Amino acid sequence: MNTKIPYKIYLNETEMPTAWYNLRADMKNKPAPLLNPGTHQPMTAQELSGVFCEELVKQELDNDTAFFEIPEEIRNFYKMYRPSPLVRAYCLEEKLQTPAKIYYKFEGNNTNGSHKLNSAIAQAYYAKKQGLKGVTTETGAGQWGTALSMACSYFDLDCKVFMVKCSYEQKPFRREVMRTYGASVTPSPSTTTQVGRKILAEHPNTTGSLGCAISEAVEVAVTSEGYRYVLGSVLNQVLLHQSVIGLETKTALDKYGIKPDIIIGCAGGGSNLGGLIAPFMGQKLRGEADYRIIAVEPASCPSFTRGKYAYDFCDTGMVCPLAKMYTLGSDFIPSANHAGGLRYHGMSSILSQLYDDGLMEATSVKQTDVFAAAEQFARVEGILPAPESSHAIRVAIDEALKCKETGEEKTIVFGLTGTGYFDMVAYEKFHEGQMDDYIPTDEELAQYAARLPKID
Amino acid sequence: MNTKIPYKIYLNETEMPTAWYNLRADMKNKPAPLLNPGTHQPMTAQELSGVFCEELVKQELDNDTAFFEIPEEIRNFYKMYRPSPLVRAYCLEEKLQTPAKIYYKFEGNNTNGSHKLNSAIAQAYYAKKQGLKGVTTETGAGQWGTALSMACSYFDLDCKVFMVKCSYEQKPFRREVMRTYGASVTPSPSTTTQVGRKILAEHPNTTGSLGCAISEAVEVAVTSEGYRYVLGSVLNQVLLHQSVIGLETKTALDKYGIKPDIIIGCAGGGSNLGGLIAPFMGQKLRGEADYRIIAVEPASCPSFTRGKYAYDFCDTGMVCPLAKMYTLGSDFIPSANHAGGLRYHGMSSILSQLYDDGLMEATSVKQTDVFAAAEQFARVEGILPAPESSHAIRVAIDEALKCKETGEEKTIVFGLTGTGYFDMVAYEKFHEGQMDDYIPTDEELAQYAARLPKID
Repeated sequence: MNTKIPYKIYLNETEMPTAWYNLRADMKNKPAPLLNPGTHQPMTAQELSGVFCEELVKQELDNDTAFFEIPEEIRNFYKMYRPSPLVRAYCLEEKLQTPAKIYYKFEGNNTNGSHKLNSAIAQAYYAKKQGLKGVTTETGAGQWGTALSMACSYFDLDCKVFMVKCSYEQKPFRREVMRTYGASVTPSPSTTTQVGRKILAEHPNTTGSLGCAISEAVEVAVTSEGYRYVLGSVLNQVLLHQSVIGLETKTALDKYGIKPDIIIGCAGGGSNLGGLIAPFMGQKLRGEADYRIIAVEPASCPSFTRGKYAYDFCDTGMVCPLAKMYTLGSDFIPSANHAGGLRYHGMSSILSQLYDDGLMEATSVKQTDVFAAAEQFARVEGILPAPESSHAIRVAIDEALKCKETGEEKTIVFGLTGTGYFDMVAYEKFHEGQMDDYIPTDEELAQYAARLPKID
Repeated sequence: MNTKIPYKIYLNETEMPTAWYNLRADMKNKPAPLLNPGTHQPMTAQELSGVFCEELVKQELDNDTAFFEIPEEIRNFYKMYRPSPLVRAYCLEEKLQTPAKIYYKFEGNNTNGSHKLNSAIAQAYYAKKQGLKGVTTETGAGQWGTALSMACSYFDLDCKVFMVKCSYEQKPFRREVMRTYGASVTPSPSTTTQVGRKILAEHPNTTGSLGCAISEAVEVAVTSEGYRYVLGSVLNQVLLHQSVIGLETKTALDKYGIKPDIIIGCAGGGSNLGGLIAPFMGQKLRGEADYRIIAVEPASCPSFTRGKYAYDFCDTGMVCPLAKMYTLGSDFIPSANHAGGLRYHGMSSILSQLYDDGLMEATSVKQTDVFAAAEQFARVEGILPAPESSHAIRVAIDEALKCKETGEEKTIVFGLTGTGYFDMVAYEKFHEGQMDDYIPTDEELAQYAARLPKID
């Protein structure tokens, strides 16, 4: 065991994963299948292949294969920005005066500024391999859209992005990055789709939601020749690709003989968290090791902590299959005061099942507390974090402060999913004292829950 | 010699430089000294210490000591974001179909988004060590100001930044980053200083220049108790700190037995270029090796290629010492259409002397060509470059294309100084076709040159 851990643990390229790990293979209770919204029967590969690329459909439905080889083209692309560093937060530890040892896996060192590129490049690759012309998608904070536009530009695919309207307006520079990579960007809801026009007719002043944007992107994909839809979170295939985060993290920790006590990740749709925890949860499922695993979500969009575990639509327009997940209801739209990402109404089926089985915890945090943690982190660790990632920072700091009280030398690992360079409007709000902590009431949540589809 | 070079060469923390290299020690013709603007005599340490920190004055004046140990506190800070990767641009090579081997030293993987942090942390450290309350500075594109605010926040120093007005307006988010790190930011010229008021009275519509902003920052430093002025480029001390770039680059190349043929860097005041080339130029000066070294500057601010080698003021207000350098005249302000940084009227005295001695080349490039190279690079290498850095990309691509014609397998190394995440207004201009290539006429340049101070 090394006694001196470097500030940043970088793997060699030869130590990078050559296969993604499919957590489902080790799950006793498999995630519930996607259902056809008409028949309520499990979606078949054939049904799904109208929406998704064929290889991705296989990955989506396969609950048994533990490892999927990462194609060489994708591994080469990964080498442009991976391995990502596992950073020992020495400066934060010193600032907090905590005996805890804090590590973070930093996924922000690439132009999309987040972990999203890990799945974007995989999905673009399979689309290209299938001979498609292009793909459609939605984006919230803009990270996924940026990631996909980068991936599509690399493989010379067309890329149509529907961007949640409030983000489109708050983050004009994200649009420009996507444009640099050749993508087209439309604010959602838009008048370019049937479902967009319907949503606008019902809610003319809506600031949009991921659910709306998904509906529009899916509509364009299924009605355009040579296009498929791709999604940046929630789906099993996305968690599969994101396992590269956890696999690298585990290799880096093992290299120095470090065993984490607590693993923390922010959770919107669950792609980062699912990827980060994959190999650790795998050990837990196989009875080889135990870890505390904590999902952190915004108090303003609390699907794990205050949602229902039920079948629901993945999108507002109800054109997508039904997924069983912790959900607030497919028409839930977080308050416009909610600044960060993590706006999705539901949660990955894999994580939902693990949470329901008591294999992980969840907690919610208020956004002013999140930005306070973000600023504190930025000043000592030198990285300006994304608001999303800062949810995990908040809880990592809180756990480290508990260790300070108890004197425990716990090892905390959290996912720093990205940078906040395109979130300065939110930071400005925070600095100006204009950020509030609106939290939905029980009555509001009950109204949304009452509209969940009834599935036997 | 390894035949397989990884995409990214990362040094171990133990391989990081422990001393900065002072190129002046190996120069036969030393850079000309700073002169007192009143007496035209070389500035003494005592005179300089009213403006700069004492340790920095020593570094500024020392033409003989080859290595300065990097204090441990600075080395620890470096470990938060260094070593920076030396990247093999495999994807760009393939796109260009060139036999050339292209490498870039990427300094953008930190929140200030550039190499500027390398000197900012050193200057903040010495200010803290001297027991100062704070520092003042100027910033153009905002990278230096961001870097300094990060460094000051780390050492708990006050930081007052004068930001060139056109950048202040074009880059509101840079301001907000500086604010996140606790700095105060004032657009320059401002009414808060004598010199600012004077410049505004003469040029009420000026969009500002680095020269103006320096004058204001110096005025505040010398008139405030416990403050000193710090500068992000041009000075000998800054090139000394930036040698960390070149030292890491050389160690990484040596590790794989790679000998560059051409080394390319963008040049504004010269800090990146001076740092990148330092150890290579040292070899050249000692007769141990030879390299083609190319400085790239904007055609709209062409100090090397169209300036005079003469003593000039470092600032518009003429409050600073005189420096001998390639200069366009201290009142030169590039056209408002000029989008990128590299706006300074002069050039580091060290680089000016080396250029005058025929030890390096210089070339200028038009900004639309620069942005075309930036976009091409972003799409294949996955990094959205800063406009400044893209000047070097342009020439690296051009040199690689020459190799394609001749079939030569040259090894090209260039400095990728930073990312363009806060430059999306400029990218937007480029996409909209609203960017032009204004180049100053000979008559204009002659007018500025005629006003250079007369020094025997």
